[in-house]
Amino acid sequence: MRISDLLNDAKGKIVMLIFDGLGGVPHPDTGMTELEAAAIPHLDAIASRSACGLMTMVAPGITPGSGPGHMSLFGYDPVATTVGRGVLEALGVGHHQAPDELSARGNFATMDPDGGIITDRRGGPPSQDRNGELVERLNKMVKVPGFEVKFISGKEHRFVFVLKGPGLEDHLTETDPQVTGVPAHAVKALSSGSARAAEAVKLAIESINRALADMAPQNTVLLRGFGSLPKVEPFSVRYGLKAAAIATYPMYRGIASLVGMDVLDTGPTFPDQVAVLKDHWDSYDFFFIHVKGTDAAGHKGDFNAKAGVLTQCDRLVPEIESLDPTVFIVTGDHSTPTALKDHSFHPVPVLIQASTAIPTGTAAFTEAECSRGILSVFPGRKLMQLALAYAGRLKKFGA
Amino acid sequence: MRISDLLNDAKGKIVMLIFDGLGGVPHPDTGMTELEAAAIPHLDAIASRSACGLMTMVAPGITPGSGPGHMSLFGYDPVATTVGRGVLEALGVGHHQAPDELSARGNFATMDPDGGIITDRRGGPPSQDRNGELVERLNKMVKVPGFEVKFISGKEHRFVFVLKGPGLEDHLTETDPQVTGVPAHAVKALSSGSARAAEAVKLAIESINRALADMAPQNTVLLRGFGSLPKVEPFSVRYGLKAAAIATYPMYRGIASLVGMDVLDTGPTFPDQVAVLKDHWDSYDFFFIHVKGTDAAGHKGDFNAKAGVLTQCDRLVPEIESLDPTVFIVTGDHSTPTALKDHSFHPVPVLIQASTAIPTGTAAFTEAECSRGILSVFPGRKLMQLALAYAGRLKKFGA
Repeated sequence: MRISDLLNDAKGKIVMLIFDGLGGVPHPDTGMTELEAAAIPHLDAIASRSACGLMTMVAPGITPGSGPGHMSLFGYDPVATTVGRGVLEALGVGHHQAPDELSARGNFATMDPDGGIITDRRGGPPSQDRNGELVERLNKMVKVPGFEVKFISGKEHRFVFVLKGPGLEDHLTETDPQVTGVPAHAVKALSSGSARAAEAVKLAIESINRALADMAPQNTVLLRGFGSLPKVEPFSVRYGLKAAAIATYPMYRGIASLVGMDVLDTGPTFPDQVAVLKDHWDSYDFFFIHVKGTDAAGHKGDFNAKAGVLTQCDRLVPEIESLDPTVFIVTGDHSTPTALKDHSFHPVPVLIQASTAIPTGTAAFTEAECSRGILSVFPGRKLMQLALAYAGRLKKFGA
Repeated sequence: MRISDLLNDAKGKIVMLIFDGLGGVPHPDTGMTELEAAAIPHLDAIASRSACGLMTMVAPGITPGSGPGHMSLFGYDPVATTVGRGVLEALGVGHHQAPDELSARGNFATMDPDGGIITDRRGGPPSQDRNGELVERLNKMVKVPGFEVKFISGKEHRFVFVLKGPGLEDHLTETDPQVTGVPAHAVKALSSGSARAAEAVKLAIESINRALADMAPQNTVLLRGFGSLPKVEPFSVRYGLKAAAIATYPMYRGIASLVGMDVLDTGPTFPDQVAVLKDHWDSYDFFFIHVKGTDAAGHKGDFNAKAGVLTQCDRLVPEIESLDPTVFIVTGDHSTPTALKDHSFHPVPVLIQASTAIPTGTAAFTEAECSRGILSVFPGRKLMQLALAYAGRLKKFGA
């Protein structure tokens, strides 16, 4: 059964509001989660008339990275459709990878020029200015016959390496030895289809080493997380939706672009994002709004900051409601409990507001209340199917 | 995605306390299940601060045998990884089968010496002493060229048949015709790889019939449930856990041994088992504690006895808690409602206590309360993944 075969001509709009790292666990002092502590009267009120539940983004007990979390939200199998770290890193610096490109995360590093031993895996690290100079030099000097090579600056010792040309498959070993005192690994093809890519990367590294020979302590590079673009069926084909992303962080803008969404220009704040939503309301069927602040506060372990982001955003929720979306979904891509300062495996609360949603007395938009909702615990990658269904966009299956 | 690829270096300990046949159904007079009737204040209190749910051990509506129930608890697919009845029977009499052994359940039976017609499928049945004599005789007299043959006494007419040698595959038909008045079936190979085993079993039965020719009414045998050891990835590899089993019944000790647990010596009572847990606390990461009394009472249809086992064990639960396990799981391998006097398909209540568990107001450790828990209804074979996750032993999947 393909969802695209079941699409009808209904036109109801869908808004998916994603609080990155939404779910939490009880604070040891108060026993409350961030959602329980936050003042979110509008979200609570919506939850009370919504279909609520919890979503397992990858599998029970598995903590999703941002890639798998979002692929799941967008309805793609997050295990089968992995997005390589290199691709995410490229997306993160704003490089929207093409299908014939191979990317990797790069480190500037220090190599003993005699024996080739790596003495510093972060090459200093260099200042941001120096990083820029090094990347400019590489972009000017590095050549691989038959391919284009591109370098993009990242933070500190980091950069993104992009190789462009025909026949580049990404089953490659990494060159980063992960420890100092040994030489960098040679890149190796893990499949016969990747042999061409391995050879091109090898030539690139030789050219890089020549270009950086007199640039110590940044006289070599380490590459890892080689990735080419996963082949995904775009949103328009898969779901019949003209989709727009309103996200502030490059990586999420990139993932949205990967699945075929238009990425709209937006200012950095949630009010900016809501304004963009209003401005483009008539032009799209589906809006993905991504709020990063919850996850950022979760990683910092700042409980009050995470609850605060929710409280601030809640104030603008009526403005989204006033647009009268046919389906309004609020959820996250994974949990980032401040108690853990990292992503976690805990299923993510979700509400789906629609005229055909069956409320079940949900008193608040919290993990515990959602666990008693009518959607129960379900796989995150089924959310898009539910969104289309609640929007009345799917035909009957079978006679 | 393999769980073993996601293991990190965390060291938190996991205790899995299994009440065999834990779940029940309401008593017709009181409307209460055994768990609801039992006085289990400590388990109730733990449930109130745990992640609770119900586990489907095999599939909805499917009643698990002890083998599938435990394979599911230990995280192995209980349908793909079947443990032959012969293997379980061998484990049950304390024979830890080797990889090159094929075992089966045997019955002593009565055969009409002229036509070979089976006249009594239980051969009397013989007394326990007689069973011992017959088994001794078979161990002395039965020979199969190229193989070792071994017989182990069971109860009444039962014994275990073990054939040892190279190339024995277990896709064999049974010889027990299940009715009297017809001859025993010939054993047949169901796959080409099992032809060697079929031939060896045929020779064994001929040798058995010669040995028992003058032993009527136990002058033949019927064999069923041929099984060789399933290939399972051991706990240490799959989960990175050094695991110990504290079980009193041979079959459960055997299943634990099958998945690579150390089987600890223990006295027959729950206090004995808790003492063994304390003694070995520092030596293992994972403890499987198996309580048989709940299932035994369930099979007898003795409601009060089953509730009584729970009440008695509950008194010692604080001693387990005092060891401060990172994750404390209490559940069963299947339900054995006293009203049914047998295993049943009903999902099994489960609680997972851990610092990152999200309590949802569970008032008691019962089927109904657990059904409203945050874990909802989930496949039993995902329990180990959750156990590792709550213990903080799993890395993030994907970037």
